[in-house]
Amino acid sequence: MKSRVPLSVEVLRGSVVESQHQVLAVVVDERAVPVLFWGNVDYLTFPRSAIKMLQALPVLESGAAEAFGFEARHICLACSSHRGEKNHIIGVAEMMKKAGIREEQLVCGGHYPANEATAHEMIRRSLQPTPIINNCSGKHSGIIATCLHLKENPEGYDKYAHPAQVRLRKVLSEVTRFDHNKAHYGIDGCGILTYAMPLQNMAIGMMALINPKESERRRVAGKRIIDSVRHEAFYLSGTDDFTSDIIQKTHGRAIIKNGAEGVFCGVLPEKGWAFAVKAEDGNTRASQAATAFLLQKLGVLNEENQTSLKKYLEPKIKNWKGTEVGSIRVKMPS
Amino acid sequence: MKSRVPLSVEVLRGSVVESQHQVLAVVVDERAVPVLFWGNVDYLTFPRSAIKMLQALPVLESGAAEAFGFEARHICLACSSHRGEKNHIIGVAEMMKKAGIREEQLVCGGHYPANEATAHEMIRRSLQPTPIINNCSGKHSGIIATCLHLKENPEGYDKYAHPAQVRLRKVLSEVTRFDHNKAHYGIDGCGILTYAMPLQNMAIGMMALINPKESERRRVAGKRIIDSVRHEAFYLSGTDDFTSDIIQKTHGRAIIKNGAEGVFCGVLPEKGWAFAVKAEDGNTRASQAATAFLLQKLGVLNEENQTSLKKYLEPKIKNWKGTEVGSIRVKMPS
Repeated sequence: MKSRVPLSVEVLRGSVVESQHQVLAVVVDERAVPVLFWGNVDYLTFPRSAIKMLQALPVLESGAAEAFGFEARHICLACSSHRGEKNHIIGVAEMMKKAGIREEQLVCGGHYPANEATAHEMIRRSLQPTPIINNCSGKHSGIIATCLHLKENPEGYDKYAHPAQVRLRKVLSEVTRFDHNKAHYGIDGCGILTYAMPLQNMAIGMMALINPKESERRRVAGKRIIDSVRHEAFYLSGTDDFTSDIIQKTHGRAIIKNGAEGVFCGVLPEKGWAFAVKAEDGNTRASQAATAFLLQKLGVLNEENQTSLKKYLEPKIKNWKGTEVGSIRVKMPS
Repeated sequence: MKSRVPLSVEVLRGSVVESQHQVLAVVVDERAVPVLFWGNVDYLTFPRSAIKMLQALPVLESGAAEAFGFEARHICLACSSHRGEKNHIIGVAEMMKKAGIREEQLVCGGHYPANEATAHEMIRRSLQPTPIINNCSGKHSGIIATCLHLKENPEGYDKYAHPAQVRLRKVLSEVTRFDHNKAHYGIDGCGILTYAMPLQNMAIGMMALINPKESERRRVAGKRIIDSVRHEAFYLSGTDDFTSDIIQKTHGRAIIKNGAEGVFCGVLPEKGWAFAVKAEDGNTRASQAATAFLLQKLGVLNEENQTSLKKYLEPKIKNWKGTEVGSIRVKMPS
């Protein structure tokens, strides 16, 4: 299963392919060698939130997590794109209190939660979406906590020259083996910088979480992150969401993270492999279907998962009345 | 400008192309001959709501609109995917009252309005989205009104064998020159059937609204629809939305209609041309950018429009804080 042609994700209405997506995927082994790929492994794009577990490494490696007494759920929130549910916000508030962070220090902006019930409750109560509600508030709290622990002024932590960004570039360059000081960068939805890199380097970076080459400190940090995400997967995303569901239902055999514009990155701890997925057009229905397909192909999903994850393995399209009107299928290049 | 290669719509973050879309477009002249195209003009897909103006032809041709005293805004609503604003719902309620339609007769299901302010107001007041709120409620009211006027039992108007669907297939077959009785079909989001056809046939169908070959009755019906949409464009979509904005700002030099999964169809009455656009991956940001690009290329947008429609001609990507972080650009095949 090595092809320079991407996966094709077809969206059917009745028996007709109505829309189609091209999705690139690459899996690397413990030597950081691509063992499976569809599409150009050097495809340059932004990882967005899919590498938040890597962006959280400094929170552990700096000693900030230990110093502030972050528990597993807080570490998971530092890696999360949470859906704004009550327990997510309580968790981030705990992180902020432990580290002494004020909400006005978060530069991420506000938006209503992805979780519809929570969003509707906020609207009913006329509550405005403040930065702590932003799906990235845990990541921002982790970055600021690291600055505070290291006695750095956190102000401007989103700017290129700030010590927090310098540190992130250093760590990301090491784990992805791609020089982030020479990388093109853009501003993410939450204001933090995101650096463009080849797809296979995202997968190589993820390997650091389970098989780091750099140092014992990195090994311990990676293990703590993976353990936290495995045990508190709700805090990585939320209720009834693909990312949390995959981790929970596979009992951590697959640890995955979504990113905006159709990116997924993940590790398979038992196999010692890592992967990265990108829908060329940025569509999440496509990258999600392709990620489920990839996990299936790699034998990560057991018999029980064929049932518990069926809605992701054989996605259906429904209309406003709830009638099934179509489906999504993934096709390998012939 | 005739190419079998689609337009490429690139989404940039900073200076990097983060995601990209392929968009097909075809323009036909008064002889129904493609005079401009990008991509396969015979690309088979569903028109979805982009041909609602054609689906409204029977409302006029049957005499239902006249019999029930439908005014321009009601005819426009029969062609609409409205955004659920207060005046949209008032207008549909007027149609239903005039024709004697009860809300439980609408099979479209409910969803919160696309217009955020209206949706939030409904949520604050704990109002459930009933069928009249559905963006297709005007189309459904038009279909039922036609049945009632023709003394048909409207029950089951969404089913393949119902007289309403038989009539729609006949009209659509005539105007698109594509036999809908042999077409693959699927169920649309609102429960009505949608028929797959080649992209150029969607454009050919739209020509019937400004240059019908079939009959005087069709000419009058098409003119009434175009005049209604030109004068009451708010009722076709809503406030600050691409579809209504294009019609309003061009004073009807471009009459366009969006459909789900990245479709746009339209007519250019002054030129006597019609067009159809489809994003292969179904993405609206892509089909919208390509439609604006197409109108620009065809010389439909005047100097004033370069300013008034700038946000559609040079779309920007903003983050949660409102900072500009990227842009969308359309590239012709080289």
